[in-house]
Amino acid sequence: SNTQPQVPPGFRFHPTDEELVDYYLRKKVASRRIDLNVIKDVDLYKIEPWDLQEKCRIGPEEEQSDWYFFSHKDKKYPTGTRTNRATAAGFWKATGRDKPIYAKHCLVGMRKTLVYYKGRAPNGQKSDWIMHEYRLETNENGPPQASYSYSIPLYIH
Amino acid sequence: SNTQPQVPPGFRFHPTDEELVDYYLRKKVASRRIDLNVIKDVDLYKIEPWDLQEKCRIGPEEEQSDWYFFSHKDKKYPTGTRTNRATAAGFWKATGRDKPIYAKHCLVGMRKTLVYYKGRAPNGQKSDWIMHEYRLETNENGPPQASYSYSIPLYIH
Repeated sequence: SNTQPQVPPGFRFHPTDEELVDYYLRKKVASRRIDLNVIKDVDLYKIEPWDLQEKCRIGPEEEQSDWYFFSHKDKKYPTGTRTNRATAAGFWKATGRDKPIYAKHCLVGMRKTLVYYKGRAPNGQKSDWIMHEYRLETNENGPPQASYSYSIPLYIH
Repeated sequence: SNTQPQVPPGFRFHPTDEELVDYYLRKKVASRRIDLNVIKDVDLYKIEPWDLQEKCRIGPEEEQSDWYFFSHKDKKYPTGTRTNRATAAGFWKATGRDKPIYAKHCLVGMRKTLVYYKGRAPNGQKSDWIMHEYRLETNENGPPQASYSYSIPLYIH
């Protein structure tokens, strides 16, 4: 639904990495209902970072510095390379090392940091847009995980 | 009631001055119900700052840097001075100027900053405890306001 989150005044959505992975992403992957619909679904490869703000707004008048959304993970390219996650106007490129996310001493997920470049690789122009992509880490021998990725936050400078 | 606030994971209570005055304090003064009971009632003059943390805890595992509570305002002393707000172990002393709180260009309240001193005035020992006391400012010619004050946040260093 498109209803806005309804929490009392004064509450802000400032989730921890653990909450994002172990609660929100885990529920999303399991197709379980998430209260308040606070994290919107977007297709990360069809939207530019400057269009995410309106799409992922939390509350009508909220001043936000971070934006949160779910997105399907990019499909593997036939060539096998997955480093470039392209939009129409640019691409997201991973930077640094992935950070492990723990919940009570258990590894529950990983956080990848990506930077947005305008243009086309390898000649893109680096921007100040930064995104964190979260993924679950599970030891279960179950069916393959749903291909959602979970990318937050998007800082704008 | 003593039930803990129930908001989805990821939400933190970080109210603005406007929300504290124009929503929470206004409702409290009008004796209207406040969802979630997120701001506890205390008697500021019967509790020391280091005991407020447990009393005003928001949620079971929340990491807090600020504490929020309602308290009746101190009654005027027979001598007419109101500068000292004493507890058993010390007193709160106003510092600086009161700050006006606006909501959509209208003055809705004032914020007073107070510092906690251990001991007895005028020889108390200044501490790092700081409190903000909020009060309503209204132009209505109604009955006298209820004598709640609203004091937040209490920073601990």
